[in-house]
Amino acid sequence: MKTTSKILLLLLFPILTVAQQKELVKYVSPIIGTAKMGHTFPGATVPFGAVQLSPDTDTIPYAVNGKYNGEVYQYCAGYQYKDSTIVGFSHTHFSGTGHSDLGDIRVMPTVGTLQLNAGTSDRPENGYRSRFKHESEVAEANYYKVYLEDPKVLAEMTTSNRVGFHRYTFPKSEQAHIVLDLKSGIYDYEGKNVWTVVRVLNDSVVTGFLQSNGWARTRTVYFAIKFSKPFKEYGAKESSKDQVYQGFWRKFNQTSNFPELAGRNLKMHFDFSTEESEQVQLKMALSPVSMRNALENMHIEVPHWDFDRLKRDGQNLWESELRKIDVEMLTPEDYVNFYTAMYHAALMPTIYMDHNGQYKGLDQEIHQAEGFTNYTSFSLWDTFRAFHPYMNLVNTQRNADMVASMMAHYSQSTLKMLPIWSHYANDNWCMSGYHSVSVVADAIIKGVYKGDPRAALMACVQTANTRNYEGIGSYIKLGYVPDELSGTSVSNTLEYAYDDWCIAQLAKHLGDIAIYNTFMERSENWRNVYDKRIGFMRPKDSHGNFRTNFDLLETHGQGFIEGNTWNYSLYVPHNPQGLMEMMGGKKKLDSYLDSLFTMHLPDKFFANTEDITREGIIGNYVHGNEPAHHVVYFYNICGSPWKAQDRIRMILNNQYHNGHDGLGGNDDCGQMSAWYLFNSLGFYPVAPASDEYWIGSPAVKNARITLENGKVFEISAINQSAKNVYIKEVLLNGEKLESLILKHQDIVAGGQLKFVMANKPNKKLL
Amino acid sequence: MKTTSKILLLLLFPILTVAQQKELVKYVSPIIGTAKMGHTFPGATVPFGAVQLSPDTDTIPYAVNGKYNGEVYQYCAGYQYKDSTIVGFSHTHFSGTGHSDLGDIRVMPTVGTLQLNAGTSDRPENGYRSRFKHESEVAEANYYKVYLEDPKVLAEMTTSNRVGFHRYTFPKSEQAHIVLDLKSGIYDYEGKNVWTVVRVLNDSVVTGFLQSNGWARTRTVYFAIKFSKPFKEYGAKESSKDQVYQGFWRKFNQTSNFPELAGRNLKMHFDFSTEESEQVQLKMALSPVSMRNALENMHIEVPHWDFDRLKRDGQNLWESELRKIDVEMLTPEDYVNFYTAMYHAALMPTIYMDHNGQYKGLDQEIHQAEGFTNYTSFSLWDTFRAFHPYMNLVNTQRNADMVASMMAHYSQSTLKMLPIWSHYANDNWCMSGYHSVSVVADAIIKGVYKGDPRAALMACVQTANTRNYEGIGSYIKLGYVPDELSGTSVSNTLEYAYDDWCIAQLAKHLGDIAIYNTFMERSENWRNVYDKRIGFMRPKDSHGNFRTNFDLLETHGQGFIEGNTWNYSLYVPHNPQGLMEMMGGKKKLDSYLDSLFTMHLPDKFFANTEDITREGIIGNYVHGNEPAHHVVYFYNICGSPWKAQDRIRMILNNQYHNGHDGLGGNDDCGQMSAWYLFNSLGFYPVAPASDEYWIGSPAVKNARITLENGKVFEISAINQSAKNVYIKEVLLNGEKLESLILKHQDIVAGGQLKFVMANKPNKKLL
Repeated sequence: MKTTSKILLLLLFPILTVAQQKELVKYVSPIIGTAKMGHTFPGATVPFGAVQLSPDTDTIPYAVNGKYNGEVYQYCAGYQYKDSTIVGFSHTHFSGTGHSDLGDIRVMPTVGTLQLNAGTSDRPENGYRSRFKHESEVAEANYYKVYLEDPKVLAEMTTSNRVGFHRYTFPKSEQAHIVLDLKSGIYDYEGKNVWTVVRVLNDSVVTGFLQSNGWARTRTVYFAIKFSKPFKEYGAKESSKDQVYQGFWRKFNQTSNFPELAGRNLKMHFDFSTEESEQVQLKMALSPVSMRNALENMHIEVPHWDFDRLKRDGQNLWESELRKIDVEMLTPEDYVNFYTAMYHAALMPTIYMDHNGQYKGLDQEIHQAEGFTNYTSFSLWDTFRAFHPYMNLVNTQRNADMVASMMAHYSQSTLKMLPIWSHYANDNWCMSGYHSVSVVADAIIKGVYKGDPRAALMACVQTANTRNYEGIGSYIKLGYVPDELSGTSVSNTLEYAYDDWCIAQLAKHLGDIAIYNTFMERSENWRNVYDKRIGFMRPKDSHGNFRTNFDLLETHGQGFIEGNTWNYSLYVPHNPQGLMEMMGGKKKLDSYLDSLFTMHLPDKFFANTEDITREGIIGNYVHGNEPAHHVVYFYNICGSPWKAQDRIRMILNNQYHNGHDGLGGNDDCGQMSAWYLFNSLGFYPVAPASDEYWIGSPAVKNARITLENGKVFEISAINQSAKNVYIKEVLLNGEKLESLILKHQDIVAGGQLKFVMANKPNKKLL
Repeated sequence: MKTTSKILLLLLFPILTVAQQKELVKYVSPIIGTAKMGHTFPGATVPFGAVQLSPDTDTIPYAVNGKYNGEVYQYCAGYQYKDSTIVGFSHTHFSGTGHSDLGDIRVMPTVGTLQLNAGTSDRPENGYRSRFKHESEVAEANYYKVYLEDPKVLAEMTTSNRVGFHRYTFPKSEQAHIVLDLKSGIYDYEGKNVWTVVRVLNDSVVTGFLQSNGWARTRTVYFAIKFSKPFKEYGAKESSKDQVYQGFWRKFNQTSNFPELAGRNLKMHFDFSTEESEQVQLKMALSPVSMRNALENMHIEVPHWDFDRLKRDGQNLWESELRKIDVEMLTPEDYVNFYTAMYHAALMPTIYMDHNGQYKGLDQEIHQAEGFTNYTSFSLWDTFRAFHPYMNLVNTQRNADMVASMMAHYSQSTLKMLPIWSHYANDNWCMSGYHSVSVVADAIIKGVYKGDPRAALMACVQTANTRNYEGIGSYIKLGYVPDELSGTSVSNTLEYAYDDWCIAQLAKHLGDIAIYNTFMERSENWRNVYDKRIGFMRPKDSHGNFRTNFDLLETHGQGFIEGNTWNYSLYVPHNPQGLMEMMGGKKKLDSYLDSLFTMHLPDKFFANTEDITREGIIGNYVHGNEPAHHVVYFYNICGSPWKAQDRIRMILNNQYHNGHDGLGGNDDCGQMSAWYLFNSLGFYPVAPASDEYWIGSPAVKNARITLENGKVFEISAINQSAKNVYIKEVLLNGEKLESLILKHQDIVAGGQLKFVMANKPNKKLL
């Protein structure tokens, strides 16, 4: 390079930097995973934002004629790409869960005769629902746009952390409405709505709250709405039959322009006259604590009516988030996959705290967060594996706050338990294990969580000793959860054993040998459910007898949750060596793995496997669910790491695509995406709470990870290509790695990891 | 008196004083009014206390087979003297209302097989209900005791302001239980229970909250319980069918020893082993704001387990309350009537604020009370007449706080209205008028309320201009509420007119002539519904035509509420002179009054008259309801004050008795009792918001009113006897009164009012 070009480059640099600052967010495609089982939402939000403002294409009844309606499952995030109507835009959504809730506070613009029911997808004209076409749809990070064909309204939305901002471009009409449906939501059944209050403060400001009994049992969302234009009229419909005292309704006509409403099933409408192409905007702020806080959140976060500015602000936040890992990929599609994975791994848990630091605790009290930001929606069975370790790399402060939030949860718990699956001041105790201990231990061992480590250890120990929870008592007594006690006795045992190992690691870290010994011993309990005769983990009753009628492929009723024994038998991430020996040595494990990835499954298997499409399965390896997320790395200890390398690149290629059907299973609150990110970078935390990552096969050409400590960790893959999936050699800071292990400290110290790729296995790699 | 006896007296004085300090509370008989229509409760409470801990003898369903159950009305306060079973002890009760609500958080001790349903009165053994006998019952101020025959448990209770203290003396049993029924309450119907949360913090502390939709639409009561003895087991039953997500229940056995419960219909039991005569005590603290505040309230108010001390503390509070008026009466029964009236006039409104000053506002937000104590349960249609004026004499600080509470309500109202009938952060808008303006004006004019009087005036004006409330718009436009608009058009018109006069008086007091003129003009609107042809107030339609089909005696559907036109036609307390002229002069009014008090009524009248027993009626004068409470004083302007004197004494004798059936109608939150108190003292506030009291006929022999300003006002009735009901002369500070009017200032300056009584009318009195 000539000196003149250097100078030119220097001159250009600031400009390029600014230009670059706008670049990465373009790769984010929120539509990925909105089809089939991805359960992502296409709407607008900021990183870990409290508001997820997104269209719902349907929220069908949970039960029809008293019978569970299986169709409801697809609407966990409210949106299915195949649908052709939108019922409204609601403000809270899970990303990628396998259970439904949220969809709070639905807003829908309509024109013409007022309708307060949603109508049906086949006859949208019978309700406020509208047809739409994907051609009119734009889904970006923090921006969603769609043209609603029935009311002829262009709907656009963006958000700040706690505020959803709607911009509706209406046709000319004397009958333009904005419907506020406080009855409907995701997980729709009679009884979900507990109570609703609405207060119309003036001709453009409305506050209220919504209390529900869904997946979270006792949950209240407070809100405040401002309209950019005064409504000329407003009204309410309260359809519950519970209000016996009718005096309220006799004294005032409460259906029309009455400002103080309450009921179980409340729907509101706000009426406008609009000119052609007139924009009516509304801001909806949420709070976990009070209407007053919601209003304050709005005043602080969005004191203006500049939609484009708020969109830009939010996209700048996303850009900063994405900038943490600057990658060079092989194909344009890979960029979209990578940055959309980063996007999906920065949606949950969500901030659950007002600007003034108040939040609702598990104890249903208002708390003041001291020294941390409170988060909610911890899908820990999923996220302890790769998501939280990923956070410990690129989002350390947030992960520290998440651990602090879990500790707050613990301190508020009557059960004295860390969260299992918690959201919105509740625990639904979903899935098996007590994996918060993994997240806590990992964050302390990696130096991320700065709170009292001893208190954290005691919280872990107490959680692991909740004898009346999910067979823990028997597990402590017998060394395993007996078959007759639980339908998921084996996965419970295996996961408890891993979790116990995490507690032991934390105890060791803190020098508590007694706890270390106790929990190291417990961590070997996986051995108690391994049936050597068949070479698989298998349910065992309290008398020590393995179950006789046992299906190796079936995922239901066989002692496991979201996985069969083929996948779960490898769930000893903390002692793979021990497992390998138990299984008969390297070759046995190697051929087990080969079978897992290649065997042919009968059709019934696919019918019975939850959460994932047929494409989410490779052989009998179920990538769309989590229990086997680490197993491909076990090839490394079989002396066949090239098989791991090959299969990792295959999984990355097979399981992550651009487009609405780009995810083969639930994204599970970022876990699937975090798996993609680690593996694209070439390593993976096989056993969180250790400080080790196992080396796989990178998919990036180059990557530059900017850490919060200011250090930079650079990854390069020489000779990278679609075919060069094998590692010829791997060097850390110029030195050959002595094992296929990367230490956390190696990364956070900053440095360079160099892979030299090849199209043939290097069978002498290590 | 000899000097020696004087000295002896001086020596004895301090002792006597101490002895006296214990005396008055003995005259309080909370059982008075617990039969038939009195609707008082016999349980324990302190003056204006937030907790009213009282037995409920039944809380029958609001509807049977979908039809309103008329029987429910008698249980407004939860207790009917005729009943022979008790269903439990609940912590909140209205005193003397004509509508049901409260009865929160029922506690019941049981022994033997656990039963969580209440059972029926005819078969109490089928539930946790128990038989009892009045012989075992003791009802004192702040103390209630009863022997529960089925479990053989002696139940005793006392309270502090925010804490109910239970003492249960059990027999020996391995199966002693304390049932906590959070489903049942007064105003019992499906849908009243909105949500309940219970948290068992340890083996003797439980917190929770209860959200209901009753007469108050959105109401939450938070509680904290401590048991004096750890329970050995506990459990819950949740009978609602609304909880679709069953994961909660699968993960834990939530029926037994599970500490984190929630649901719509929750019942709990706490189990003990007891020795013979073992006492198990429990403290229940309430809060309008949070469980945390409830616990704090308990820690501050009752940090001990000394039942007798708390009882004594509360009785001392009552003694101080009663000491404000020291009377000498004619008979022992009169003392009981007088001090029980004082007791009943110091129960409501109740304190609605935690120790830390937090309370729930009408806007459902948590507020910090700045410079006042917040009160709730304003039965203003009743209490503006005599109760609040009574408070302005003997409880000025509390009444100032009550006005401040009403102003806080106003500032939190989306409707921008002062309360109509408000309780527990809600307005139920019950009854006619906007009588808070009378209370506000009276308190300001009498110098009691020290807040911003201009803000108060504007609140009154804005309330009176709520055009969409109860025909106010038409009233403003036409000068009356038209018949076709409201079933109570005439009482609305009459009461609005009086209220408007109050606003005018306040405006005059503040020098706002414009508002004065406007509202003085409005205050004459009573003329618009007076039908000169028949000499009665009468419904009139919007075209100006009086209703043709009109019954002078009927109280239902004739344009009035809780009164017929005979009683209501005199409802011009602010312009009796004008009314007299309209009616044809002194003689006409005099004979109207004579007829009212002596006419014979057909039986159907009694069947159709609400809230009162047959005994609550004298002639056609209905003392058991309020609209005519002032009318006996109209004799004074007819030139026949002796008739007033005679009839006042008659009403006092007829309508107030010792014993459970001592009240002829609902006590109406102290209004009936305040009427008794004023009239016993010899004067009455005919038109609150004036500074005048009209002279009647005292029933006391002597009275000594100790005012909060330190002044003493003494009343003596020379030659007082049951027959000497007539006033021969009346002297203020030794000077003969120039009219039968006593000024408020005359009282608060301190002084002596001397009546000379006689057994014959003094027709030249004034």
